[in-house]
Amino acid sequence: MADEAPFQLLHSELVQYIYKSGENAETENGRNITKLENMGFRVGQGLIERLTKDTARFKDELDVMKFICKDFWTCVFKKQIDNLRTNHQGIYVLQDNRFRLLSHLSAGKQYLEQAPKYLAFTCGLVRGALSNLGVRSIVTSEVSIMPACKFQVMIQKM
Amino acid sequence: MADEAPFQLLHSELVQYIYKSGENAETENGRNITKLENMGFRVGQGLIERLTKDTARFKDELDVMKFICKDFWTCVFKKQIDNLRTNHQGIYVLQDNRFRLLSHLSAGKQYLEQAPKYLAFTCGLVRGALSNLGVRSIVTSEVSIMPACKFQVMIQKM
Repeated sequence: MADEAPFQLLHSELVQYIYKSGENAETENGRNITKLENMGFRVGQGLIERLTKDTARFKDELDVMKFICKDFWTCVFKKQIDNLRTNHQGIYVLQDNRFRLLSHLSAGKQYLEQAPKYLAFTCGLVRGALSNLGVRSIVTSEVSIMPACKFQVMIQKM
Repeated sequence: MADEAPFQLLHSELVQYIYKSGENAETENGRNITKLENMGFRVGQGLIERLTKDTARFKDELDVMKFICKDFWTCVFKKQIDNLRTNHQGIYVLQDNRFRLLSHLSAGKQYLEQAPKYLAFTCGLVRGALSNLGVRSIVTSEVSIMPACKFQVMIQKM
């Protein structure tokens, strides 16, 4: 199905645009990642608002994370997170075995360094969604074998 | 349903980003419109490729336009074009009575001047899709009462 394609293609254009309009310095890369992360944050906020309009209150943090892995992920990527793990102390690892925003990159090792710029937006997306549900977090990502990737969510206690 | 929301919200972030990063001069507005149109063009090309992978050959120009109004529009906006008209001489008018990328703007007249920047991407989208199907065109848009709008497609004979 091509249902996720408009979002995917638009995201890829956005990454290219941001990287093209900036310079190529190392510091610029950091700034671009931040820009993408911030845009993801705002989209995540808007999205979770629409998705939770008619849902019941969440029981606890784990309940929130399950919603992100199922409903939220399906809305954006047309699939669920494949694996959710937690240490029960505020760290959650969400694994996607076939992450859509990486699927257009070849799986060769030489493309691994390209991966972070395609993950920054989604880190922000998760952080924004959680933030609107009252959960402050830091979200990072990691790719070992494409197109699989992991998002690590560290809950910030207030 | 929130199915079109990720695309919609990302598009709105993109428009804001492009307008924020540029200056506010009149000429800059034209450049921003062009940037958005070009990004739409490339997304349209990629999208139509996926959508037509398994479809039969199109009979004629009208057949192509019907595909844009139904399958293509539904894939991006989760609804069909409401009305398609043609003069049978290469001009087509596609009317969407509730255009998704305008639905977040209020309907007041004072927002009408904001409309073009939310339509440029979609003009490019249509032009890109048609271009990949071998149809060269010029696509313009028009809003009279929000959130309804019209896209006019002028086929360019080769």
